[in-house]
Amino acid sequence: SNFAYVRQFETEDRCLPNTWIVVRVDGKGFHKFSEKHNFTKPNDERALSLMNKSAERVMNDFSDVIIAYGQSDEYSFVFRKNTSAYNRRASKLMTNICSLFASSYVFHWTEFFPDLPLLYPPSFDARVVLYPTEQNLRDYLSWRQADCHINNLYNTVFWALVQGGLTPKDAHLRAKGDSSEKNEILFTEFGINYNNLPEIFRKGSVLLKQKVKETCVKELKGETAESSPYERTVTQIHALHRDIIKRAFWDEYPHLLSNK
Amino acid sequence: SNFAYVRQFETEDRCLPNTWIVVRVDGKGFHKFSEKHNFTKPNDERALSLMNKSAERVMNDFSDVIIAYGQSDEYSFVFRKNTSAYNRRASKLMTNICSLFASSYVFHWTEFFPDLPLLYPPSFDARVVLYPTEQNLRDYLSWRQADCHINNLYNTVFWALVQGGLTPKDAHLRAKGDSSEKNEILFTEFGINYNNLPEIFRKGSVLLKQKVKETCVKELKGETAESSPYERTVTQIHALHRDIIKRAFWDEYPHLLSNK
Amino acid sequence: SNFAYVRQFETEDRCLPNTWIVVRVDGKGFHKFSEKHNFTKPNDERALSLMNKSAERVMNDFSDVIIAYGQSDEYSFVFRKNTSAYNRRASKLMTNICSLFASSYVFHWTEFFPDLPLLYPPSFDARVVLYPTEQNLRDYLSWRQADCHINNLYNTVFWALVQGGLTPKDAHLRAKGDSSEKNEILFTEFGINYNNLPEIFRKGSVLLKQKVKETCVKELKGETAESSPYERTVTQIHALHRDIIKRAFWDEYPHLLSNK
Amino acid sequence: SNFAYVRQFETEDRCLPNTWIVVRVDGKGFHKFSEKHNFTKPNDERALSLMNKSAERVMNDFSDVIIAYGQSDEYSFVFRKNTSAYNRRASKLMTNICSLFASSYVFHWTEFFPDLPLLYPPSFDARVVLYPTEQNLRDYLSWRQADCHINNLYNTVFWALVQGGLTPKDAHLRAKGDSSEKNEILFTEFGINYNNLPEIFRKGSVLLKQKVKETCVKELKGETAESSPYERTVTQIHALHRDIIKRAFWDEYPHLLSNK
Ligand SMILES: Nc1nc2c(ncn2[C@H]2C[C@H](O)[C@@H](COP(=O)(O)OP(=O)(O)OP(=O)(O)O)O2)c(=O)[nH]1
Ligand SMILES: Nc1nc2c(ncn2[C@H]2C[C@H](O)[C@@H](COP(=O)(O)OP(=O)(O)OP(=O)(O)O)O2)c(=O)[nH]1
Ligand SMILES: Nc1nc2c(ncn2[C@H]2C[C@H](O)[C@@H](COP(=O)(O)OP(=O)(O)OP(=O)(O)O)O2)c(=O)[nH]1
Ligand SMILES: Nc1nc2c(ncn2[C@H]2C[C@H](O)[C@@H](COP(=O)(O)OP(=O)(O)OP(=O)(O)O)O2)c(=O)[nH]1
Ligand SMILES: O=P(O)(O)OP(=O)(O)OP(=O)(O)O
Ligand SMILES: O=P(O)(O)OP(=O)(O)OP(=O)(O)O
Ligand SMILES: O=P(O)(O)OP(=O)(O)OP(=O)(O)O
Ligand SMILES: O=P(O)(O)OP(=O)(O)OP(=O)(O)O
Ligand SMILES: [Mg+2]
Ligand SMILES: [Mg+2]
Ligand SMILES: [Mg+2]
Ligand SMILES: [Mg+2]
Ligand SMILES: [Mg+2]
Ligand SMILES: [Mg+2]
Ligand SMILES: [Mg+2]
Ligand SMILES: [Mg+2]
Ligand SMILES: [Mg+2]
Ligand SMILES: [Mg+2]
Ligand SMILES: [Mg+2]
Ligand SMILES: [Mg+2]
Repeated sequence: SNFAYVRQFETEDRCLPNTWIVVRVDGKGFHKFSEKHNFTKPNDERALSLMNKSAERVMNDFSDVIIAYGQSDEYSFVFRKNTSAYNRRASKLMTNICSLFASSYVFHWTEFFPDLPLLYPPSFDARVVLYPTEQNLRDYLSWRQADCHINNLYNTVFWALVQGGLTPKDAHLRAKGDSSEKNEILFTEFGINYNNLPEIFRKGSVLLKQKVKETCVKELKGETAESSPYERTVTQIHALHRDIIKRAFWDEYPHLLSNK
Repeated sequence: SNFAYVRQFETEDRCLPNTWIVVRVDGKGFHKFSEKHNFTKPNDERALSLMNKSAERVMNDFSDVIIAYGQSDEYSFVFRKNTSAYNRRASKLMTNICSLFASSYVFHWTEFFPDLPLLYPPSFDARVVLYPTEQNLRDYLSWRQADCHINNLYNTVFWALVQGGLTPKDAHLRAKGDSSEKNEILFTEFGINYNNLPEIFRKGSVLLKQKVKETCVKELKGETAESSPYERTVTQIHALHRDIIKRAFWDEYPHLLSNK
Repeated sequence: SNFAYVRQFETEDRCLPNTWIVVRVDGKGFHKFSEKHNFTKPNDERALSLMNKSAERVMNDFSDVIIAYGQSDEYSFVFRKNTSAYNRRASKLMTNICSLFASSYVFHWTEFFPDLPLLYPPSFDARVVLYPTEQNLRDYLSWRQADCHINNLYNTVFWALVQGGLTPKDAHLRAKGDSSEKNEILFTEFGINYNNLPEIFRKGSVLLKQKVKETCVKELKGETAESSPYERTVTQIHALHRDIIKRAFWDEYPHLLSNK
Repeated sequence: SNFAYVRQFETEDRCLPNTWIVVRVDGKGFHKFSEKHNFTKPNDERALSLMNKSAERVMNDFSDVIIAYGQSDEYSFVFRKNTSAYNRRASKLMTNICSLFASSYVFHWTEFFPDLPLLYPPSFDARVVLYPTEQNLRDYLSWRQADCHINNLYNTVFWALVQGGLTPKDAHLRAKGDSSEKNEILFTEFGINYNNLPEIFRKGSVLLKQKVKETCVKELKGETAESSPYERTVTQIHALHRDIIKRAFWDEYPHLLSNK
């Protein structure tokens, strides 16, 4: 038609080739969202599991996402360096992932919050960030995991103090010290050894893929005899809750960085 | 932390000031999605209403979206020219809108498909496009509405022919002529006057905002006496199904282009 | 060859259509350059004329540049809104203009500084800025001309005071007041009526194009008889030194904004 | 002023960190430029030396350019991976380099073409391309050197045939075969062993920097006694004409890729 010229106003946004593409999704206004839905403080296992479930759906749909890392209301998806998913178009990647994450969150809500109706549909922002080297990529993921640790230690102390009777203001004043002070408070005042808290709270969640062979039997409709069994490869997704800052993790999963 | 330097790899993506920002959302693989959910062909009123409902939620959350236009599996949201929503950051705008649209689609599904369970969470892509002038913006919306018309006329003929017994291939051959041929087929062979079909199918949906004054009465807890009534302004969203290509529409709603 | 894949790392940088493209060129380190070449202070007519000459070459080479504005060590080139020069590729536009400006500056140096050898080749930066509306474009040019006025008034007072014996520090202290104070100092202490200074200093330079018809006579080689005269249209470039902030200028040259 | 808002229309264009920044400059319309100035065909040593001289000036001004490669009418400048020159702003880098190259070309013209006046100021385009890995960077440079070889072999055969009496059309037909055919023609018909032609023609020019210590003696004004000699480090630029496709070159200059 006469109007089709308006397509020329669209801009190309292909990501630099041979560079790690990271899409980070983050809940919009989850401070309020978690309050309204009475999320357990500082960590709500149901909420974290729902985040993980949503991320799993994203990983299943995007075969080139090789690792994902989540904590709090955010998730980062890492594409292999040479992906040509959506021709590396940034808008396509971030919006498809972000919307699938959001719709999955609502879709699976009742599985994780069976007694708690979802009050309103949540939204998430997303962004694409490019990392040229392994070191940069690892530092990115380390940055998110360090953030998880710092926030979680603070929040654990803060809410322990508040539940112990302090005002939020006073709790903040006591919780704002350094790491060892916070561990000390938890241990001496609440008998909590921080390192014994669930790893999912302290480390966040790492999603990895694994290819496994399955033996299948296809039942033919309306026939009593079954067809012969055959093999197929399926991709399974596993969640880990462990340190990804140190070398050990990457040595154990060398394929992540090898760009195969 | 030592890792925070990775933030510097994020890029700024502010939209050019004083330019219309359009965010268009489009369902991913809705060919398959509509099949799997047995959408009525060529138009499923429930599906269109669900799209409209989702768009309404977006409009409610984004006060600077002044008009939205939807058809098929897509929706376009137009921000006023001088919006500073999210500081005009393109990624923020498109991902927040896109994910809210998607989560709303799932959230409201059962209202529109009470008997049909949602089989899997849908995803949508989104993009930002900038238009510098009124004419460009109007031409953009005209482009989408013309697309609605063209597809709908074709699909109406195609499915009539298929339901009349033709193979898809033959139906396509007969339906690929010009506009008047298609009208002719519908009229003489199926007794359908295309212009009498529901406007929502032929024109798509236009969402507009209206500010209305409401009188409210706040009931004070535990008291029998009510507080005195007060007024507040609320924004209502209305759906229209009419031509937006011709001048008349824009003359009727001059505030849309006046940048107030 | 096997290496050609590296082209894919180039990115597209087309400018938004239907938008004014402005390329601004600015001398690198002209504080030092003007010192080393003993430019007259605060304004060196030779230097300004050389800038204008270089800009003229740019305008001649880029037929879609409809107006240019220069002052100090900078020049702004405005393309007509719908130019498709270099397919609107930003890098192409800014680098070609910038390098032609720079090479012209050296090429014509001796015409304007016959006795002063050029000590080293100067460089310039350049940028592309897009303006969606007439008002934005006019405001851009007004911004540059206001900058010219402000700097020139200050510099005129400053150098008068310095030549009158003040230290640079004291001259600065006296020259940093408001506009009327500065006019006052010039008038009472130096007998200078600022408004009588050359307009090129106070207003900068505006380059415009004019199409004129020429009558030509082509001499045929080796023949005594001349061919019959014929007409051709040539584009001439004129420099003006006048206000472009007020409406009057734009009313006088309506074609500039009419996008013809 | 009231107009300063127009600055907000400028966009940020910082290059991705930790990535090789390459700026490639290429002469505009040098087909015509070389004809008008009677450049020797297929290679004009004076023209190539002038290109090298201009590139040297660029390297001197940009301390973070660690290697440059030139051939025909083009030059590529490679910044070290972590340069923060101009805060990695793409426009600044390409325009400053491009304009300095162009002004240097004119500035040094007469040194290389003492008897041939420059007819008009040349312009160059420039672009920024980013390469994330050593391999990509090396492949980029290999691509340019392979291009040099291919064009030069073709041009050498083409112009030999033309000087031998063939029409350009016929010369092209004979010269368009594969590499060995072309070598054969040169050898059997013109007695030219291609591999004995000057390396600058076959390989192009590689510019490298070398830090050397100089002993200086500063003469104190108006004094007979000299100050004591002191050492300073200066950067010298050397031109090589050799293969940069194979490993050997990079092994010899390991600092180029080591990001020190
Ligand atoms: N109680 C509780 N709150 C959580 C949990 N996970 C996340 N949150 C809350 C705590 C934070 O207020 C919020 C995440 O912080 P953000 O910096 O993303 O802030 P928020 O989403 O409010 O704003 P944003 O729209 O992202 O700028 O989500 C949880 O498991 N339990
Ligand atoms: N039966 C039926 N189908 C519909 C209706 N609305 C949309 N669709 C289908 C028809 C088209 O196949 C599809 C929309 O076309 P698109 O060009 O967006 O294709 P699709 O979403 O499959 O691919 P994409 O991921 O957008 O490239 O959705 C409806 O009301 N009824
Ligand atoms: N004496 C004299 N100086 C001039 C004249 N025109 C320009 N200049 C000098 C005054 C300023 O120091 C300088 C222009 O200011 P800029 O802000 O562009 O600074 P500069 O070029 O030094 O640095 P830059 O590389 O642009 O950031 O050029 C002139 O006619 N006479
Ligand atoms: N005779 C002669 N010509 C040369 C020499 N070096 C470069 N040239 C010419 C040959 C080519 O026509 C031209 C370079 O090719 P380009 O692809 O850059 O084309 P050109 O600059 O004409 O167009 P452009 O503006 O870059 O698209 O310069 C030389 O040493 N001798
Ligand atoms: O969202 P915040 O506050 O954690 O900080 P940010 O994500 O770095 O900021 P933004 O979302 O605005 O990019
Ligand atoms: O999605 P299509 O096929 O209607 O076409 P498009 O939206 O113009 O293409 P893309 O989604 O790839 O930008
Ligand atoms: O160059 P200045 O200092 O006049 O200021 P600017 O041009 O706005 O800054 P930049 O050249 O760094 O964009
Ligand atoms: O300039 P050419 O023709 O060698 O080809 P190119 O440089 O790849 O094209 P462009 O200069 O238009 O980017
Ligand atoms: Mg944020
Ligand atoms: Mg959040
Ligand atoms: Mg968060
Ligand atoms: Mg599409
Ligand atoms: Mg679709
Ligand atoms: Mg669609
Ligand atoms: Mg500047
Ligand atoms: Mg300057
Ligand atoms: Mg300046
Ligand atoms: Mg080119
Ligand atoms: Mg060229
Ligand atoms: Mg070339």
